[in-house]
Amino acid sequence: MNQHRYDAFRDLHHRPGTPLVLPNAWDHASAAALAAAGFAAIGTTSLGVASAAGKPDATGTAREETLRLGRGLARLPVPVTVDIEGGFGADADSIAALAADLVRAGVAGVNIEDGRPDGTLAPLPLQRELIGAMKEAAPTLFVNARTDTYWLPGHTGETARRLTAYQEAGADGLFVPGLQDEPVIAALTAEYRAPLNILYAPGRLTVARLAELGVARVSTGSLLFRAAVQHAVDLAGAVARGEGDADAGGVVAYAVADGWADAYRM
Amino acid sequence: MNQHRYDAFRDLHHRPGTPLVLPNAWDHASAAALAAAGFAAIGTTSLGVASAAGKPDATGTAREETLRLGRGLARLPVPVTVDIEGGFGADADSIAALAADLVRAGVAGVNIEDGRPDGTLAPLPLQRELIGAMKEAAPTLFVNARTDTYWLPGHTGETARRLTAYQEAGADGLFVPGLQDEPVIAALTAEYRAPLNILYAPGRLTVARLAELGVARVSTGSLLFRAAVQHAVDLAGAVARGEGDADAGGVVAYAVADGWADAYRM
Repeated sequence: MNQHRYDAFRDLHHRPGTPLVLPNAWDHASAAALAAAGFAAIGTTSLGVASAAGKPDATGTAREETLRLGRGLARLPVPVTVDIEGGFGADADSIAALAADLVRAGVAGVNIEDGRPDGTLAPLPLQRELIGAMKEAAPTLFVNARTDTYWLPGHTGETARRLTAYQEAGADGLFVPGLQDEPVIAALTAEYRAPLNILYAPGRLTVARLAELGVARVSTGSLLFRAAVQHAVDLAGAVARGEGDADAGGVVAYAVADGWADAYRM
Repeated sequence: MNQHRYDAFRDLHHRPGTPLVLPNAWDHASAAALAAAGFAAIGTTSLGVASAAGKPDATGTAREETLRLGRGLARLPVPVTVDIEGGFGADADSIAALAADLVRAGVAGVNIEDGRPDGTLAPLPLQRELIGAMKEAAPTLFVNARTDTYWLPGHTGETARRLTAYQEAGADGLFVPGLQDEPVIAALTAEYRAPLNILYAPGRLTVARLAELGVARVSTGSLLFRAAVQHAVDLAGAVARGEGDADAGGVVAYAVADGWADAYRM
């Protein structure tokens, strides 16, 4: 079962020219709605999960909410990958237990990042150890190793060293959010065996262009969450001002929204 | 403190011609964003809260999530009212404890409904007892008594009897979702001392028209939640198809979204 799920999720990263477009959910409703819309796999956004709980992103404070959500989403009929930020301050032993727990719950993969809240990168040996510990404890968990060398200022020169180390430690995928430089992307997809994940950015490289560059996975990160909440605020303002009808007329019906919970029935 | 909060929230229902437009949030992020947008008070939507947790609405199963969210939202700088469905199966003693707990946490009000999952209305004496028990235990909790006589088929004739009983039991506000009949609304606002709440429905009566009819509170119910999730799904589809830029260009920045959590810092 775990092996099958792992193979199925990994295979979604290996269709040349057709990257996995991975939408990132923040709660059970958004995940069920995205799965119902036909997406082949669902990720989570750490900003969305933390913010929904009233907590700041990437500070390790939303561990409980993240794991609860991950275990819930594992009941969806599509593979689910969970953003575990930097591992919630775990050492190798505790992150191994976390990985085993998630794979037992039915989670297909995780994202683990090396950026720290203080703007530094986690020490390379530590990050390699965390990745290795997860793969040893849970060989069928798809570990997507994220490096924040393009996310944090002043670190782009460390990208290759980081990716090489993470791939050697057993990472199944490599993720470089913030990277939008076409020649660099093409060089990375040629260089590494592990599939490359790029973060979609509005107005920048399209999914089609990223596909041509050899990218295997395009994720939306916090975009959908931010857009959703903003849409709600905009709609509320339009209602208050008497302008709300145009936007709200085609909104999904109550019964459809209430039916999203059916995906989680035991 | 409680008295002041109660008075402030109640006063928002008593400005002739200017009803309280109450947007309903489903998590800490949406509530903080709506408060930041300037809404004078924030409600919750039981559909949204339940669905975010992977549960169906109005079945009493999202009690824990509802109370956790209510206690969290009480930290916002505006009054917050919590939809407690039908009271989560509570009897008079336990709903009194719930009301006291919420008001102690800083919650300004609750919605309690008489519709049952099986399509019937709660027995009138029981509902009156629950409302009375809450007001006795928590006099400074604004109890908005919702009758589902226009929500469930075949019960419109019971509306006046229900509203009269709920007002006599101590309800601070009366809520008739599904009602959009102008003469009926005008008659109810003339008849009852307690302010009348109507659910906004896209394409039906505007806030301005409801104001003319004497409505004191217009809430959005599950609309914002449904619109938000649908917007996320639509945007994800547009990204996958290479059409996403137009919609996503003006999305609220990561730092702004991450800052919503600041509203909950202790």
